[in-house]
Amino acid sequence: MPQYCEDARSGRVDGHASPTWEKTADAAILVDTHHGFSHAVFAVAHQPLVELTRHTGIAGMGICHSYDAAILGYFAETLARDGLVALGFSNSLSPSIAPWGGKAPLFGTNPMAFAVARDHGDPMVMDQSSSVVARMTVRQHAETNTPIPAGWAFDKDGQTTTDARAGLAGSMAPFGDYKGAALALMVDILSAGVTGSSFTFEASNSANKFGDPPNVGQFLMTIEPSAFGGTDFPARLETLFSAMLSQEGVRLPGDRRIANRVQTQHAGVSISDDLHKRLLDHC
Amino acid sequence: MPQYCEDARSGRVDGHASPTWEKTADAAILVDTHHGFSHAVFAVAHQPLVELTRHTGIAGMGICHSYDAAILGYFAETLARDGLVALGFSNSLSPSIAPWGGKAPLFGTNPMAFAVARDHGDPMVMDQSSSVVARMTVRQHAETNTPIPAGWAFDKDGQTTTDARAGLAGSMAPFGDYKGAALALMVDILSAGVTGSSFTFEASNSANKFGDPPNVGQFLMTIEPSAFGGTDFPARLETLFSAMLSQEGVRLPGDRRIANRVQTQHAGVSISDDLHKRLLDHC
Repeated sequence: MPQYCEDARSGRVDGHASPTWEKTADAAILVDTHHGFSHAVFAVAHQPLVELTRHTGIAGMGICHSYDAAILGYFAETLARDGLVALGFSNSLSPSIAPWGGKAPLFGTNPMAFAVARDHGDPMVMDQSSSVVARMTVRQHAETNTPIPAGWAFDKDGQTTTDARAGLAGSMAPFGDYKGAALALMVDILSAGVTGSSFTFEASNSANKFGDPPNVGQFLMTIEPSAFGGTDFPARLETLFSAMLSQEGVRLPGDRRIANRVQTQHAGVSISDDLHKRLLDHC
Repeated sequence: MPQYCEDARSGRVDGHASPTWEKTADAAILVDTHHGFSHAVFAVAHQPLVELTRHTGIAGMGICHSYDAAILGYFAETLARDGLVALGFSNSLSPSIAPWGGKAPLFGTNPMAFAVARDHGDPMVMDQSSSVVARMTVRQHAETNTPIPAGWAFDKDGQTTTDARAGLAGSMAPFGDYKGAALALMVDILSAGVTGSSFTFEASNSANKFGDPPNVGQFLMTIEPSAFGGTDFPARLETLFSAMLSQEGVRLPGDRRIANRVQTQHAGVSISDDLHKRLLDHC
């Protein structure tokens, strides 16, 4: 939040932008956020995307001239609430993952999200970055001089490190080694390449508060299963989830997030004095 | 190959099936392989999918009543050769990955593939299973009584094991722990749930040579970047690849596979006496 406020003050993201959207092909919507937050225009443009998908079976939304997606799962979850299967991809404001075999960060933590509606209750929402942990987590360890577990980050020579500062100076480890690094590449291509946006390595560095807008992108896909043979999709999904949950210790992706959301509606959110001060200073 | 031949003999896959395809929505094609191999019908139906995508910006192909996809990357690569961005998902004939937190295998090694055309030369093709290594690799270690590295598989109690036999009796480790397990779930939903096919845990076990056809599914998606703002996509892609390859030790996903393919066209493929005998026995 402090970062977003700071970027809004400096003009890296335009809180007063008037984003636009248009249908660019039979199953395609292109959103131009004009360097604003993409959430406001998505609130308007997601319904046309849903309606399109009813006729086409599958549809896509490119979001260009964009800023950080914040919670990418929000986009996928919103689309799933209309009964669709949704996929989302977003690149990042600054590089943190190196291409596999290399040492210098090139890809963002580049999340992907996947959501499906359920017959009852909240959608199942998967929302995961391409790194083992968020860069913020390593930064918090660096600020408190706490070592990080091996496997979270590499130093600038590409070696596994437990020194949080060395990790920040190096790169974040992709989850699953080369396979996660390949996913980070895929996300940069789908979110920035497909939408004509800046790749993460080209986006202005978020540490530079006087930089240009990052110009990154998001890409969303929606699927209506009944067009592809999945006529009994909601019931079939419950069959799969039941099989998973019949095993002790298993929960569905996103369950913890949903539980937290329910709790915080009543209990509020506890934040540190430090974050409170930063929010007052920046926002 | 021996497995495919055995299944063709037993009727688990029908080598004489007459698969069909139809356009089911503006951007949707549904292929019914009628329990045959999906490759033959894909050879016919992929061109209509490509033409559809030119008008719709994004299109999808569900493949139902299907059998093992073999090399999933083949489907994505073929579509990329027509200038599109392609994604592919396939579930598997038998479960090998447990849901995260559980012990019993439920998902297949469930690969996903991603391919993009390049201005010159072969497409970039990513094709990776949801497990750290192929189950076949663990089986080979079991057959030769060789230990496996920690991190490849879990025993039946869900504990990391270096005993290949214990790993076969347990489950394959997903890459990147819970994040890879979530991808395995996503692939089962996209390939089987969306296409009305059997989830991996429902597919008849491939060890049962008198079993029913596995009835698994594949799902393919194609994207025309120019519909989503990516008008200069091929050149932009080369900018990204150049940035990656400027780092020492970096190669593009799939490069080794392409190099091997070129080499084997001249040099052939070396196989063991044992595999040769099994091929003669089964095929």
